[in-house]
Amino acid sequence: MNNKVPVAELKSRMDRFRSEMEGANPGWETAIIFGKINLYYFTGTMQDGMLLIRRDSEAVLWVRRSYERAVDESMFSDIRPMKSFRDAVASVSGLSDTVYMETEIVPLALFQRLQKHFPFSRAQSLDRCIASVRSVKSVYELELMRQAGKIHRRVLEDLVPGMLEEGMSEASFATRLFSTMVEEGHYGIARFSMFETEVVLGSVCFGESSIYPTAFDGPGGNYGMSPAVPLLGSRERKLRKGDMVFVDIGCCVDGYNTDKTMTYMFGRPLPSEVISAHNKCVEIQHRAAAMLKPGAIPEHIYGSIMESLDNEFLENFMGFGSRRVKFIGHGVGLHIDEFPVIAEGFLQPLKEGMVFAIEPKKGIKDVGMVGIENTFIVTPDGGESITGDSRGMIPVY
Amino acid sequence: MNNKVPVAELKSRMDRFRSEMEGANPGWETAIIFGKINLYYFTGTMQDGMLLIRRDSEAVLWVRRSYERAVDESMFSDIRPMKSFRDAVASVSGLSDTVYMETEIVPLALFQRLQKHFPFSRAQSLDRCIASVRSVKSVYELELMRQAGKIHRRVLEDLVPGMLEEGMSEASFATRLFSTMVEEGHYGIARFSMFETEVVLGSVCFGESSIYPTAFDGPGGNYGMSPAVPLLGSRERKLRKGDMVFVDIGCCVDGYNTDKTMTYMFGRPLPSEVISAHNKCVEIQHRAAAMLKPGAIPEHIYGSIMESLDNEFLENFMGFGSRRVKFIGHGVGLHIDEFPVIAEGFLQPLKEGMVFAIEPKKGIKDVGMVGIENTFIVTPDGGESITGDSRGMIPVY
Repeated sequence: MNNKVPVAELKSRMDRFRSEMEGANPGWETAIIFGKINLYYFTGTMQDGMLLIRRDSEAVLWVRRSYERAVDESMFSDIRPMKSFRDAVASVSGLSDTVYMETEIVPLALFQRLQKHFPFSRAQSLDRCIASVRSVKSVYELELMRQAGKIHRRVLEDLVPGMLEEGMSEASFATRLFSTMVEEGHYGIARFSMFETEVVLGSVCFGESSIYPTAFDGPGGNYGMSPAVPLLGSRERKLRKGDMVFVDIGCCVDGYNTDKTMTYMFGRPLPSEVISAHNKCVEIQHRAAAMLKPGAIPEHIYGSIMESLDNEFLENFMGFGSRRVKFIGHGVGLHIDEFPVIAEGFLQPLKEGMVFAIEPKKGIKDVGMVGIENTFIVTPDGGESITGDSRGMIPVY
Repeated sequence: MNNKVPVAELKSRMDRFRSEMEGANPGWETAIIFGKINLYYFTGTMQDGMLLIRRDSEAVLWVRRSYERAVDESMFSDIRPMKSFRDAVASVSGLSDTVYMETEIVPLALFQRLQKHFPFSRAQSLDRCIASVRSVKSVYELELMRQAGKIHRRVLEDLVPGMLEEGMSEASFATRLFSTMVEEGHYGIARFSMFETEVVLGSVCFGESSIYPTAFDGPGGNYGMSPAVPLLGSRERKLRKGDMVFVDIGCCVDGYNTDKTMTYMFGRPLPSEVISAHNKCVEIQHRAAAMLKPGAIPEHIYGSIMESLDNEFLENFMGFGSRRVKFIGHGVGLHIDEFPVIAEGFLQPLKEGMVFAIEPKKGIKDVGMVGIENTFIVTPDGGESITGDSRGMIPVY
């Protein structure tokens, strides 16, 4: 089995976590991690189990299933098998009354089962601390994201134009695109941290489908397959000449995602006012990206962009109708939606090694969602795009 | 938008839920549903919001996003927009101290945010009640599952043999299989209720990959793509003559799944002792299926099968090595893993209209996981397979 996360990487992540905890929650004693992606981040394996971190001793990864796989693929220093939480609790003494947990992930019943064995009465949130540690990527992580970005660029900028055929359904295009992505090196999954957010591929839409309402907290929309499966593509919506095609998908290499949106004009050019709205989004992306420097404040970047836009342009900007979202970009990494967000209320200065997707988009009635998205690394010279530099609205005719 | 869940169906589900609650939790006053799949079950739409059910009044679906889509696709009688939980709480009076919730789904932080507006101090579990209601399928639901079963049968029994090529990787076969499934009518998703269980397609394995350890609580295994993506197929494992191929995937029509496993002998026959272990699994499936009659007790079915097996056969039965699971079948519906389970501790008698996947499997060193799985409807004559009747171990040479 390849792709092991190096020991030095695991150690540095845990050190940074402990230091973040000291700052945010001085006096903390016990933290327990259950989320699969956080388990992977700190241990290099995502099993059914928990990572028990105590302030005064080395962390232990307790694994219910599969212990064998954990040992096989993880370089984490202390991995132990457990049948029940009882096995873990028996190994520790002097447990605190408060436990720090991923309160955005752990269901009530799991906490109650844990409480049967551990004498905790209170759960405090660990979510922000972990998000903050994860937001700054190491050289190792950036290298994986650069690989994802290369695949992403090649598929969306070079290959998609050759895949579009008149009369094909959104569903059929989506599955072909999925196969192509995997052939080119994508690891076949796009992970979101939001509650019960299921995404197989992303938004792959023809025309007005890209502004149809969804529950998803992003600017775009899509018809989806049915009320029971409001994702993937529609079987009924077929590609017609004159359609704008909207592709907003993730690309993953060894767990790390990039996020990118490309648009295409199929069959013939779109009206000039559509293209000019699109070009304005591209220009906004460039301006926002240029501000992605260490020390910059996300709220200021957001404010500076929003203030520069007139009311007419703001209509349907970042979402059609009532579904406008209040951000223009977001962190990316093991999840596609990571901390911080380029939005109001985010006041911590950017750091070198943070990675953001910037996605200015605008809905246009009967046409769809114009705009663009790329993934940028924060550098002293401003954001460096790792997913290409096409301006989108690629003509396919 | 087609595929609306009929009003009569929604009404009958809510009536059965209320009656189940009266029986299990007499005196209940307030139940709140957040889980997307349960929201869909009771309202026909899965938006960001909550279904507020009070004992003495009609239920209300409060939607944060997207209210427009909810109204567009749902026949539920009372749908209202909300910006915050405050909007919902303002509409009700005399709230109880205890709220019934999906404790296996709702994260601690969501409960805490709810508590800021609602004066609840205690959350009681709603999970078993909903699972029990959902376990008995209506004629409408069974028709969708029969459609899924037909697609499932055709792809796994008729089409897969023509898709296997020497030298192809598991990953490549998995993506082709996914495209074919969607072309044939599959809705592109396989949903599990277990905590953080991500499945794009299912297990698609060549040879010994199907017994490699995973975190997944089922008999099979798989290499997966990497420690960061322990699902989909491996890029390194290529199909060789003499391999057994193991395909355990879900098929979905309008939200409803069937579950089926087929095995194939690629290039040449497998040794006779492997085939005889496989045949024994097929025979066990038939025996268990014959017991799927109204009134039968899941624990008895499980016990009767397990008692009939000798110690030699039990080795690696239902999982390789230490990873044996303690069931031989499970309910199927909107989730692939539904209540009840054919296992110890499940004492409620079966009812007509329940649907089960029966999956006797046995790991064989260096070969993989032999065995079979089909989806059966409970009838007075015993389980009726809706996913075909091939005995598996289909020769492809």
